[in-house]
Amino acid sequence: MRAVLMERGELRVEEIPAPRPQSGEILVKTRACGICGSDLHAAQHTNTFVRTSRETGGAFKLTTFDPVVLGHEFCAEVVDFGPQTQRRFKPGDLVCAIPMLTRDTPTAVGYSSDVPGGFAQYMLLSDALTIAVPQGVPATSAALTEPMAVGLHAVNKAGLKGDEGVVVIGAGPVGLAVITALKAAGHGPIVAADFSAGRRQFALQQGAHVVCDPKDTNPLGQPELRKRPVVVFECVGVPGVLDNLFVQVPQHTRIVVVGVCLQADTIRPLIAVNKELALQFVLGYSLEEFTQSLHYISNGDFDVAGLVSHQVGLEDVAQTFAELKNPDRYAKVLVNPWVEGDL
Amino acid sequence: MRAVLMERGELRVEEIPAPRPQSGEILVKTRACGICGSDLHAAQHTNTFVRTSRETGGAFKLTTFDPVVLGHEFCAEVVDFGPQTQRRFKPGDLVCAIPMLTRDTPTAVGYSSDVPGGFAQYMLLSDALTIAVPQGVPATSAALTEPMAVGLHAVNKAGLKGDEGVVVIGAGPVGLAVITALKAAGHGPIVAADFSAGRRQFALQQGAHVVCDPKDTNPLGQPELRKRPVVVFECVGVPGVLDNLFVQVPQHTRIVVVGVCLQADTIRPLIAVNKELALQFVLGYSLEEFTQSLHYISNGDFDVAGLVSHQVGLEDVAQTFAELKNPDRYAKVLVNPWVEGDL
Repeated sequence: MRAVLMERGELRVEEIPAPRPQSGEILVKTRACGICGSDLHAAQHTNTFVRTSRETGGAFKLTTFDPVVLGHEFCAEVVDFGPQTQRRFKPGDLVCAIPMLTRDTPTAVGYSSDVPGGFAQYMLLSDALTIAVPQGVPATSAALTEPMAVGLHAVNKAGLKGDEGVVVIGAGPVGLAVITALKAAGHGPIVAADFSAGRRQFALQQGAHVVCDPKDTNPLGQPELRKRPVVVFECVGVPGVLDNLFVQVPQHTRIVVVGVCLQADTIRPLIAVNKELALQFVLGYSLEEFTQSLHYISNGDFDVAGLVSHQVGLEDVAQTFAELKNPDRYAKVLVNPWVEGDL
Repeated sequence: MRAVLMERGELRVEEIPAPRPQSGEILVKTRACGICGSDLHAAQHTNTFVRTSRETGGAFKLTTFDPVVLGHEFCAEVVDFGPQTQRRFKPGDLVCAIPMLTRDTPTAVGYSSDVPGGFAQYMLLSDALTIAVPQGVPATSAALTEPMAVGLHAVNKAGLKGDEGVVVIGAGPVGLAVITALKAAGHGPIVAADFSAGRRQFALQQGAHVVCDPKDTNPLGQPELRKRPVVVFECVGVPGVLDNLFVQVPQHTRIVVVGVCLQADTIRPLIAVNKELALQFVLGYSLEEFTQSLHYISNGDFDVAGLVSHQVGLEDVAQTFAELKNPDRYAKVLVNPWVEGDL
């Protein structure tokens, strides 16, 4: 099968053997797989990514030396079943799955050199973590289940009471997922900040009430936030953003850290102490939240169609990774491994 | 009156004018005033302390150039009243107060060059923030009201449900206050960690169930913590402790940051993200918590007598500041401005 291999930051298309399902696993054809900010991180900062992931005992089996097929935000089509599967699906059914194989050592699909991720024509899914896509939902929407589950989980972990003003820092795919989930739950006013005019437009489209360019305007100073408790969703994940927020936010602000900053970061704890700030770092989602995410996509509560800005084939992935460093035109880019070439 | 002046990190005893109470203020004689870790910080890192405090809009009017009389953990004796005071007290009554004057610009007693703190024979208190010490409570116990209020507030902000294992990192005065408040509320098991054998003894005395030397033993690995949610109180406040905790704590740990780290600090957010850690930075206390603290000291719920390891006069303050850098023998040191010399 054709796959995009990432090795030491370089991406290339190559023919590799299709995977074979082990016990409890399903073989699927990848129909659409989103490019995630973490994929860009993994390619740009492989060493840090590997080292820090190991230190935290995570399931990322990405190594610095072995080629990896990235891609963990997918919708796929059932092909075949390994032993000890429930056979809840028929070949041809569209499914989504939490990108994790529950082998002896849990293996992250899209970050392991043992199994391919979604930038390949075939993948393996854990039967127990796979859910059916309802009839009529296109694969290009269902592929948003994973990133939207991240937004839903972040909003759930924020424990919003309903009277808060909400600020979303960064309107990339993560920030847009958070905004979409906030809007679906009726939270707000939502103030979104991004340096990119294109992304501010996406933020408005997904439900932000106010957008601003942090170069000119302090998002925390917006009049919509006055006399309300403030909750900030940090969806950027680059060094310096947290400390900058410490300076800008009012007393007793809760900051939900959704953006994944791979580098070491410098903060001034005295500022956080003086304001009694609370930080909640969040990651991923539960199977229940993942299932809810697909449900909300299906029933229209999560309006995701406008989030897909581009679709590309495997040959375009390397070029797209490079272009996503300049993100003005992009929201979510989906990879379809079947638009060029063949098995 | 005699006072200890701190100027650019140097401490000296000097004769200065006694302060005169303005509207809403009480003139008091200082009977006992504790040396706080923040006092040592202010003397050692004056520039950072001033700059960061200004950036956060705090009430610290400490400047780098003007001499300041430190001291904000005090019990004092009422002498005279300024205009517009309620005269709830008689001259000679023992009182405690939140160390803040509610002037046009709120002024922190013990951190302002406008008014003296507790390392002087006389002080001014805000009438509205002053409470009576119950009969029979010695000044040396009542002087612990402020630091114990810090411990009480930290425990309140932790929102403990009762089933948690609690780890206290650092058994200096702040950690000991937290342990004392935890014990009074029946929380635990309490694991306390400190490099100093002397401080580990103080921790056991105040209610820790287990103590360990983090040089040899990971406090987070203690068997008492197994199968419980873990809440950590960070009571050290030096760079590196937070990131080290990120590595050591289990998933979903809540870290209450009580220690005030004045320097910039480096963290690896990816570790906190992977474990979904929560951080709650805390500062100070409310008037209600301050009042409760004195109440708990009075009724014995807070057993503070053993926390006072030393008492010194004004002449000894400079030497004591130097010795507190090597804290093995010290818990709380109280300054009595009246044990030598006279008005």
